[in-house]
Amino acid sequence: MSAHSAAAGRAAPEILDALKHVVDPALRAAVDRLDDPRMRLIARYQMGWCDADGNPTRGGGKAIRPALAVLSAAAAGGRLDDGIPAAVAVELVHNFSLLHDDVMDRDVERRHRPTGWVAFGEAQAILAGTAMLTAAIEVLVAAGPTGERCLACLLDAIQRLIAGQSEDLEMEGRADVDVDDVLRMEAGKTAALLSCAASIGALAIGAPDEIVDGLAAYGYQIGIAFQLVDDILGVVGDPAETGKSSSSDVRAGKRSAPIVAALGGESDASQRLADLLAGGPPENDDDVALATRLIVEAGGVDWTAQEADARLAQAREHLDGLALPHRDAAADLATVADYIVTRGRVLNPSTR
Amino acid sequence: MSAHSAAAGRAAPEILDALKHVVDPALRAAVDRLDDPRMRLIARYQMGWCDADGNPTRGGGKAIRPALAVLSAAAAGGRLDDGIPAAVAVELVHNFSLLHDDVMDRDVERRHRPTGWVAFGEAQAILAGTAMLTAAIEVLVAAGPTGERCLACLLDAIQRLIAGQSEDLEMEGRADVDVDDVLRMEAGKTAALLSCAASIGALAIGAPDEIVDGLAAYGYQIGIAFQLVDDILGVVGDPAETGKSSSSDVRAGKRSAPIVAALGGESDASQRLADLLAGGPPENDDDVALATRLIVEAGGVDWTAQEADARLAQAREHLDGLALPHRDAAADLATVADYIVTRGRVLNPSTR
Repeated sequence: MSAHSAAAGRAAPEILDALKHVVDPALRAAVDRLDDPRMRLIARYQMGWCDADGNPTRGGGKAIRPALAVLSAAAAGGRLDDGIPAAVAVELVHNFSLLHDDVMDRDVERRHRPTGWVAFGEAQAILAGTAMLTAAIEVLVAAGPTGERCLACLLDAIQRLIAGQSEDLEMEGRADVDVDDVLRMEAGKTAALLSCAASIGALAIGAPDEIVDGLAAYGYQIGIAFQLVDDILGVVGDPAETGKSSSSDVRAGKRSAPIVAALGGESDASQRLADLLAGGPPENDDDVALATRLIVEAGGVDWTAQEADARLAQAREHLDGLALPHRDAAADLATVADYIVTRGRVLNPSTR
Repeated sequence: MSAHSAAAGRAAPEILDALKHVVDPALRAAVDRLDDPRMRLIARYQMGWCDADGNPTRGGGKAIRPALAVLSAAAAGGRLDDGIPAAVAVELVHNFSLLHDDVMDRDVERRHRPTGWVAFGEAQAILAGTAMLTAAIEVLVAAGPTGERCLACLLDAIQRLIAGQSEDLEMEGRADVDVDDVLRMEAGKTAALLSCAASIGALAIGAPDEIVDGLAAYGYQIGIAFQLVDDILGVVGDPAETGKSSSSDVRAGKRSAPIVAALGGESDASQRLADLLAGGPPENDDDVALATRLIVEAGGVDWTAQEADARLAQAREHLDGLALPHRDAAADLATVADYIVTRGRVLNPSTR
């Protein structure tokens, strides 16, 4: 509990950092249990713990999902530690999906480093992703009844994640996609696992259905908000901050929220954007810059930021409606929700 | 039990066919529970139940793994039905691995049809494979305590399967591979899941460790034998029977048992084969035919057939050493073991 008590009232980066330390030893132990040395190396690389030769590095993601998992155990009346196996499992599943999605999306850079398939080859990256997925389930099974209560939730999230990525790929370059299609796809691609993360700790401690469901609804809404902010960053984010190329979603021909919202408008900019993208993704830097400008002008970024704000408000409402026994942990959940939306504003002045 | 009792004393194809009918409804139900229509279509195609447009077809594999799973439940003193969730799970895992391996190996044909990634694209095939893997675990979780007893066994087999495929890919084209390397790789790639299949039904009914371990050892040996026979067919199999191109492993530059055994010999044929393969896989049909002839001449196929026979003998020993309560089911397990090795002989006169 100490890591949690100390975190109460603090800013989101401090909360996330403190909780990362709570989960990290178990997460590293789970990855180190991978028996095959090649799979273990790729998994460690994917986690940001080493370079492609296995030399230790400092890095890794923000670890929002494991933080939510341990906070949900605490908020529901348990200890942070009760959520650790679940936190490890969701973070492994998240990294499995990053590793596989980078292969499918042909993304070459993540967190300022070559993606897994670039570093180790496509086949080995696919295998390591599946090994991490399997390890996630092994962690829950090894945790006994506490973990077994979480299995169905995690498996359901994995299936939704897979379906969301499938839909995302299928939408690429399609002209007839509207914002409802995008939001449905993002519900699978991102919100399903965040919803699971935000409720799985409560499940682990056997919390009442009402609390589990409320936390899942909170997590679902911040999941949508999270992806919408990611979508904004994929259009107007600073490469130095995002670790990806500028306007990466524009270059990739993605049908992300700002792009689809911009295309759906009636302004001159919407029409010019549609004409520009009609023949496929823009191929040179000038056209990428023009498309990016038109997306902003046509209101695509504003629409997405407003939708993210609305989702944040819904997430806060779900949280406020719950009689969570541990108020400090509940406050941290609210802080993390705010952070997920504001990080887009910090990085990108145009959406302030 | 009726399907089993009727099967006792029958030939392997009849046993497999009867048991396929025992497992099939639950297997179809598990695939149909995949929520995403695209994932469901690809999974059904992979199972051989429909064409790429979803029109029903007759086909599918021999279903050896699910047969072993239900037989192991019966042999250990339970009912065939007790092994059904486990049988469904192992068959889904097997098909996940086929779908993913075909992507990695760039195999374009399986069971006389385009492979999944050829029919649906690489990314969607990867996603569908992972959806099938996840569905396998969902089946065990949904089965309650019976299924939960099987989870660790299946997850361990999946990790070994992944490690074996990783090793197989890493060995491709390497000159310094010996038969021990190949056998270790094949233990992961094939024997791990067959060992799991042959014992998971016994696990499901809570059979004593001695019986579970003995059945696992039997399954491990027939798994090695199975892969060795597959290796023979990959060199000298009849395309009309195997559903693959002739000498497919020779063309692909695989380091399978007959090839490595032939390269490890001291004969003139071994040396000529090494020279021929030194620059990579043979590129034209004449060189493929020559390589195939040299593999046979150098004794690679004979060595592999003898090793398969030795593994079969060990499998039978493990089986005979167990006091299995249900002798008919035990007899069927022995029949299936024989079949796994003899199918290579039926298809390939040179190894008779």
